[in-house]
Amino acid sequence: MEKRSWYVAVVGSASCPPEIEALAYRVGHEIARRQGILICGGRGGVMAAAARGAREGGGVTVGILPGPDRSEANPHLQVALPTGLGDARNAIIACAADVVIAVGGGYGTLSEVALALKKSKPVVALAFAFPGVPGVVAAESPVAAVELALKLVARP
Amino acid sequence: MEKRSWYVAVVGSASCPPEIEALAYRVGHEIARRQGILICGGRGGVMAAAARGAREGGGVTVGILPGPDRSEANPHLQVALPTGLGDARNAIIACAADVVIAVGGGYGTLSEVALALKKSKPVVALAFAFPGVPGVVAAESPVAAVELALKLVARP
Amino acid sequence: MEKRSWYVAVVGSASCPPEIEALAYRVGHEIARRQGILICGGRGGVMAAAARGAREGGGVTVGILPGPDRSEANPHLQVALPTGLGDARNAIIACAADVVIAVGGGYGTLSEVALALKKSKPVVALAFAFPGVPGVVAAESPVAAVELALKLVARP
Amino acid sequence: MEKRSWYVAVVGSASCPPEIEALAYRVGHEIARRQGILICGGRGGVMAAAARGAREGGGVTVGILPGPDRSEANPHLQVALPTGLGDARNAIIACAADVVIAVGGGYGTLSEVALALKKSKPVVALAFAFPGVPGVVAAESPVAAVELALKLVARP
Repeated sequence: MEKRSWYVAVVGSASCPPEIEALAYRVGHEIARRQGILICGGRGGVMAAAARGAREGGGVTVGILPGPDRSEANPHLQVALPTGLGDARNAIIACAADVVIAVGGGYGTLSEVALALKKSKPVVALAFAFPGVPGVVAAESPVAAVELALKLVARP
Repeated sequence: MEKRSWYVAVVGSASCPPEIEALAYRVGHEIARRQGILICGGRGGVMAAAARGAREGGGVTVGILPGPDRSEANPHLQVALPTGLGDARNAIIACAADVVIAVGGGYGTLSEVALALKKSKPVVALAFAFPGVPGVVAAESPVAAVELALKLVARP
Repeated sequence: MEKRSWYVAVVGSASCPPEIEALAYRVGHEIARRQGILICGGRGGVMAAAARGAREGGGVTVGILPGPDRSEANPHLQVALPTGLGDARNAIIACAADVVIAVGGGYGTLSEVALALKKSKPVVALAFAFPGVPGVVAAESPVAAVELALKLVARP
Repeated sequence: MEKRSWYVAVVGSASCPPEIEALAYRVGHEIARRQGILICGGRGGVMAAAARGAREGGGVTVGILPGPDRSEANPHLQVALPTGLGDARNAIIACAADVVIAVGGGYGTLSEVALALKKSKPVVALAFAFPGVPGVVAAESPVAAVELALKLVARP
């Protein structure tokens, strides 16, 4: 595993429609192509799709799981870390990421977005379920989302 | 300290304009009057105002602090609990409350609201800074907010 | 609830022999008599006995629970706070206490003792199950344990 | 990064004598040779030495940091995850590992050992600073420690 230089969390629901999964897959793939380390919540839906995309793109995938063991981990994680913290693990995801990309999303996703913004981290959104949150930057496509994320992280 | 029967978290920013503080004070006072245990983040602004209101109303006030010690606690807490968890303590507030009342608010508040909704807990809002979040029930006044919260908690 | 001035965590196993429970009860009672706020893990065994002692002595009792709701709380808590953090709540107990008194104990207790010592907090032990831990001060009786704890906390 | 099959936490102090670091280095190296994923607290001393050993052995290294950013991470981590949880991150290390190897150690180490034992996970120790803890299996050398850890994990 070569040296990689930025950490991006892809956040979204554990169950979602196929078109949202397709977006997440392409986001994950693009992150891998641009040498990002993908962090996610480790479960299904958006998390699994993004991890699969990153894996198939040759990237590194890390899942930070809410439960006490690896049973709920999706199969696309190289590093699967059960925390036993329940939803408090969302704060770790926001803490460990340099930038967050939200795809679709539910209340858990909204909490991760809010926690990242609280820490002054950039948040990019794609088909975001909560369009009214100030500070979230909307992207038009998976490639645009990752490009935007990379640009926002690089900003001094 | 007599037996009390419901736990309500009042969430909001650590610094806020006086009119938001005034709302928070009255929310806290009304919670005390209705035998609620007030949970808050233990710091200033909305948290301090709500705790002061509850204290002056004869209620019980609990602060769940992000830092490692009690130095940042407001003076209106009967029980001040430093956690050392940083923003992850927001998940504890959402977990420990039966219902959440958001007053004004910033990103931290939004995370608490989202975490409570994730756990299917009722959330009532007063002058809420993020009006577009589905599932949040708006109230017109402090008394209405506490009445609504109590009604939503009592619902089977 | 009058102003109280020190926080003491009583830690020990959720199930324990009656003689350990009797010690914990007397520790809790003595803490209440000396205006301490009792913090515990909120469950049975040592936690319940200490909380009952403190309650019957007119004190304030706080339980910081590992699970996501109040169902496992013992009936002697005035403030019962579910955290959803699992064993990570042990770190909060160590963080929120000014001093720790261990009674009997299992591995969870040992973790709380170690986390408190890590934070340079005094730890007093009564019938402690792990006698070889340096830095733990053994007490001969419940009254002696609380006296010792109070003295160690007061030390500049 | 190929598929690896077991997670081992190497725990110990952030500052330690050179002979303890040498042991940790060899433990890390042996873990890598046996396809383990190394989890550690991400900082210096035992954590850095074990991560360096695993890296130089071609392994995967994960650091779960207590602070809010990556500034305290040692340079041998492929995945460095700041949590912002302070010492509560010790519970995550115990949760995420299949087995724990303690080398030398201080109070933080003792808490990780206790939390792992609480979760019924095997704990192997090398030059352990707290020899009296029941359930900890002592090893005579780094190679023996890793062999023992692997055997204990494989046990049904």
